[in-house]
Amino acid sequence: MSGPETKTEVFTITEVAEERSISSRNKRLYEQYVQPCLAELFGTTLFVFVGCSSVVGDVGSGLIQPALTHGLALGVLIMVFGQISGGHFNPVVSLSIYLCGGMKLRLLVPYIVSQMAGGTIGAGLTKAVYPPKSYESSLGGAFVPFAAELGRVTVAEVMLTLILTMVVCMGAVNRQTRTAMAPFCIGLTVTANIFAGGVLSGGCMNPARAFGPAVVANHWQHHWVYWVGPTSGALITTSLIRLLFGDQKTRILLR
Amino acid sequence: MSGPETKTEVFTITEVAEERSISSRNKRLYEQYVQPCLAELFGTTLFVFVGCSSVVGDVGSGLIQPALTHGLALGVLIMVFGQISGGHFNPVVSLSIYLCGGMKLRLLVPYIVSQMAGGTIGAGLTKAVYPPKSYESSLGGAFVPFAAELGRVTVAEVMLTLILTMVVCMGAVNRQTRTAMAPFCIGLTVTANIFAGGVLSGGCMNPARAFGPAVVANHWQHHWVYWVGPTSGALITTSLIRLLFGDQKTRILLR
Amino acid sequence: MSGPETKTEVFTITEVAEERSISSRNKRLYEQYVQPCLAELFGTTLFVFVGCSSVVGDVGSGLIQPALTHGLALGVLIMVFGQISGGHFNPVVSLSIYLCGGMKLRLLVPYIVSQMAGGTIGAGLTKAVYPPKSYESSLGGAFVPFAAELGRVTVAEVMLTLILTMVVCMGAVNRQTRTAMAPFCIGLTVTANIFAGGVLSGGCMNPARAFGPAVVANHWQHHWVYWVGPTSGALITTSLIRLLFGDQKTRILLR
Amino acid sequence: MSGPETKTEVFTITEVAEERSISSRNKRLYEQYVQPCLAELFGTTLFVFVGCSSVVGDVGSGLIQPALTHGLALGVLIMVFGQISGGHFNPVVSLSIYLCGGMKLRLLVPYIVSQMAGGTIGAGLTKAVYPPKSYESSLGGAFVPFAAELGRVTVAEVMLTLILTMVVCMGAVNRQTRTAMAPFCIGLTVTANIFAGGVLSGGCMNPARAFGPAVVANHWQHHWVYWVGPTSGALITTSLIRLLFGDQKTRILLR
Repeated sequence: MSGPETKTEVFTITEVAEERSISSRNKRLYEQYVQPCLAELFGTTLFVFVGCSSVVGDVGSGLIQPALTHGLALGVLIMVFGQISGGHFNPVVSLSIYLCGGMKLRLLVPYIVSQMAGGTIGAGLTKAVYPPKSYESSLGGAFVPFAAELGRVTVAEVMLTLILTMVVCMGAVNRQTRTAMAPFCIGLTVTANIFAGGVLSGGCMNPARAFGPAVVANHWQHHWVYWVGPTSGALITTSLIRLLFGDQKTRILLR
Repeated sequence: MSGPETKTEVFTITEVAEERSISSRNKRLYEQYVQPCLAELFGTTLFVFVGCSSVVGDVGSGLIQPALTHGLALGVLIMVFGQISGGHFNPVVSLSIYLCGGMKLRLLVPYIVSQMAGGTIGAGLTKAVYPPKSYESSLGGAFVPFAAELGRVTVAEVMLTLILTMVVCMGAVNRQTRTAMAPFCIGLTVTANIFAGGVLSGGCMNPARAFGPAVVANHWQHHWVYWVGPTSGALITTSLIRLLFGDQKTRILLR
Repeated sequence: MSGPETKTEVFTITEVAEERSISSRNKRLYEQYVQPCLAELFGTTLFVFVGCSSVVGDVGSGLIQPALTHGLALGVLIMVFGQISGGHFNPVVSLSIYLCGGMKLRLLVPYIVSQMAGGTIGAGLTKAVYPPKSYESSLGGAFVPFAAELGRVTVAEVMLTLILTMVVCMGAVNRQTRTAMAPFCIGLTVTANIFAGGVLSGGCMNPARAFGPAVVANHWQHHWVYWVGPTSGALITTSLIRLLFGDQKTRILLR
Repeated sequence: MSGPETKTEVFTITEVAEERSISSRNKRLYEQYVQPCLAELFGTTLFVFVGCSSVVGDVGSGLIQPALTHGLALGVLIMVFGQISGGHFNPVVSLSIYLCGGMKLRLLVPYIVSQMAGGTIGAGLTKAVYPPKSYESSLGGAFVPFAAELGRVTVAEVMLTLILTMVVCMGAVNRQTRTAMAPFCIGLTVTANIFAGGVLSGGCMNPARAFGPAVVANHWQHHWVYWVGPTSGALITTSLIRLLFGDQKTRILLR
């Protein structure tokens, strides 16, 4: 009467296999969808916390302190979380990477939601550590268009984000030009760009970085500039890469 | 009568072999236990000497001089001593690396003792080179919570150390994300973090860096902040990596 | 009657082959001549925009803001466009690379024309984003010899460009010494050189960087200095490499 | 009568072979002895020119301008000339590398002579480009012990040079710990060290850097400090590496 025994055995084996397949499906789901979104949320939290804190705690350095802090923190966080999520920490960076073929569509909205949430938590942490007086006098690191003319400020954000997303897509997506040094290239671009446009628009280039402190400090004046400018810059970058600078796989003309 | 001869020969051979084995055992002991501890002691000495000296010898740079000095010195020393001891130079870095599975338990206490000793020697060397007047006016590079509210200062140390140990464990321990650029990532994180929290807590993130000048300058006010904050930050980092961000070998959930 | 069929087939195949060969010739032409020139034009546009903007938007940093901005932006742009065009963005860099055997003669003039055009567009973009008042007070980032003695200023430009082109040709062309870190070496040389000679000549080292804002701000005083100095520096560099420092393939003596 | 023919042929061949062997001997001599010394002379010229110029042309940056300039220029020049001569540009660096087994004795004195000559030419070039007034008010970049107590200043130079030569010998000579990033490690150590000791001794660590402007500006007060301090530091480093931190080939104990 080995029949039932075998049956049981087979049944047991199947059960284990099923369990294993459920467990491995959960693992795959976690590593492909949940962990990347958590990395974007957590990385953006840390980036926005460090960034806003460097503005609130600035001690008369001009632009040196915020420029170096945003650039170094971003470069390091991309290096450290890049293998998990790509290390975007910026909705328009995700947008331009998607449009250049560097990520799946189904991750785009979850990434952007994670980044907005992370930016808000990071800005909240800055509020938690800084005394209210210095926090409020610097608007918690929220962005303010310094120049009176909003048109110029918006064009500045377009140009700076164009440069940032160009470095992202050429350095990390486009096969012909991508490099292992991309994280530091991206970070140092942020440093250079804040030096170039900090006195105009603050040098944001990142709606999540703008959104977080806007929520926490409740400062929304001219907030649209930090969505319209960066998004336009990312779209121009994508067009230029798809039309002119991409390699054979990325370019849609003359390939 | 070749017997005794052979015996002698064998005896001699055995003796040499024993000597060799003692010598190679000593060598192994030296390279696996003594040299790493010496490297931690000496590296922490140099790091704390350079760090404290950059604070005592600051010439009105705001946070630029200490932020760059601590970051660059740490990055370079990790690069140079990393192959010997890992290049921790920080008790809570050793703690978080141990808790993430990156070092043996039997080295943890010797490392921490070496780091505390190194920090004290380094702070002493700063006292030896700087004139007493400038040494005392800057408390020898000892840490002072600038803000009145100790809670905020402690939370700042928690957050900054969380970021530092996250970069250490993800960049140098966790298999999926570790990188050859980890030494510079860790150093530049210290630079960014001092810019982010320097005006609150000084941006210590390292009990050995706090302990050394506290001993030498005999300044112990609120010293506990620089043990409680960094240790808590390291524990949060380890939990996050073990639960969420670690790879299959490091994570304890969903692996 | 397979004849006509075959004929047609052959004809069709030939047609397709011709189309293919035209298309692949166009593609080759694009990737070998048009895309590199576009990359030089666009890269120089971004470099001069960021550079001029960091001068116009300087907030009393002394030389720190322009020195870091020019160096970091140049290093990143070479990293990102180097695989397409080499990432020169500077007529005398192209000249010295050509004279050391690192590029084809037929690309030299198109590259220089692209760089001059890019410099002008970049300087125009700086004018577009900055309010006229701050733009004019800083001459739009155009170069001014600060010291009265033009001879010294010219020698300064000779020396600084000699160093820059030496790093370019040794780091990126000369087989024995070239390195993957050349883009950052070149960028950081610009940073060091601006610190070394910024108060004398501005630390230009690049006729395209000088030409762009000179056109847009219509400021031509002593403009020749920024052509004569850099060109002389590049020629000295090339002589030194061809005679003394080149490897066996590059050196014309003792090979 | 093939005899004479053959003889002639053989003779001719021998002659060519001799010529070839003389030429290849000259080539070998050039590449092994002359070119490295020229690289040390020329590299030290550029390093001291850039270094002294950053001090003479400093615009109230505290230590930021000299610290960054010396560090970046040194890192880049080592990267670019390292494959030819090792890129020492510093007599005590050559000394410590020789004592750790990283270079031949017969090159030591020629290297040091080249470095002293290069330092003098570089300091002369700084005098050539800067107006006499600003040149003299900053002593042409010559070193001045700022603190009254020469003992402290000398100990500072000992410590700073100990750190520099430790990074050189561990990062570029000692097999177990050497790294391709050594050039930047060495440069950034100089930056950190100038921040740590600049207000005490100037942060020289290099007799050639001290000697050049001392000759050109004819400023010899306390000049011995910049020979005694760095040499002592280099000797301590070598002892520590030979006794404690070297790998099996470098260490003379317990190997």
